[in-house]
Amino acid sequence: MTHEGGEPWDRDAWDIDPDSVVLTLQALAPHSTGLIMREAFYGTRRFDDFLRRTGMSPGVLSARLRDLVAQELLVKVPYKEPGTRERAEYRLTEKGRDLVPTMVAMIGWADRWLTGERKPTMSLRHSGCGAPVEAVLKCGHGHEIHAAREIVASPGPGATRLS
Amino acid sequence: MTHEGGEPWDRDAWDIDPDSVVLTLQALAPHSTGLIMREAFYGTRRFDDFLRRTGMSPGVLSARLRDLVAQELLVKVPYKEPGTRERAEYRLTEKGRDLVPTMVAMIGWADRWLTGERKPTMSLRHSGCGAPVEAVLKCGHGHEIHAAREIVASPGPGATRLS
Repeated sequence: MTHEGGEPWDRDAWDIDPDSVVLTLQALAPHSTGLIMREAFYGTRRFDDFLRRTGMSPGVLSARLRDLVAQELLVKVPYKEPGTRERAEYRLTEKGRDLVPTMVAMIGWADRWLTGERKPTMSLRHSGCGAPVEAVLKCGHGHEIHAAREIVASPGPGATRLS
Repeated sequence: MTHEGGEPWDRDAWDIDPDSVVLTLQALAPHSTGLIMREAFYGTRRFDDFLRRTGMSPGVLSARLRDLVAQELLVKVPYKEPGTRERAEYRLTEKGRDLVPTMVAMIGWADRWLTGERKPTMSLRHSGCGAPVEAVLKCGHGHEIHAAREIVASPGPGATRLS
């Protein structure tokens, strides 16, 4: 990233905490929370399915699901099948689904740099044409951005001027 | 996300761990690691600057920087100013810079859902035209993807068939 008009902003003159990178990392921490969100994206809704697919203990899973409901990333909805008692399932909220670009960006990065010879364990494709899906950067005027140096970072309206 | 041809893949028939969502979350954990990467993107290179801007203790910062160098997200490069002893600075590697789409996606999400009345603390704009930068989803054929249901998730080449 670069600086407005080539002139660096004085980082030490601004308090930018908590910034949005850290807020999102906190929302998805500990990484077992990210594991649940991954399964939710891949279609899991029921406690027993989350349990089997994440390998967590029931106590830890309950705590993480409670936290995700409190954060409004998942919503707990009752359902009842004939002849069984009422149970709950966990569905992604709009806020939770809006993490898809973040998850796809994370998947692309790890696929490029971390999976190596083991190869990616998931494939994401466009339902319309079957081509692989990736997260790309664009500006509000529709320009695609290919390098970090094309991005100008500066303090936003929520930053506090220190001096 | 949806399923190939409308037919759900049998999630329980596949081991998809470690998947790329979790690999990236692990690379950026604990969140102090994410804090260092954020500062690196915003231009910080020197130990003392990281120390002041992240508020970490020297011991914790050293450990996190060592970890980021071991992960090859940062590279330690010696530099010397006239009349001072040689020091080291930490620069983003290509692998580290390639996390920009992930960071921008995280920033966009938290800006939309978490910062609220406090407002975002950072602003990211296109150096060419000044419009705000965001992470969007696209497929390899150039179609923009606007909803999670347009993405088909299925086991990738690294997944292990269990049954």
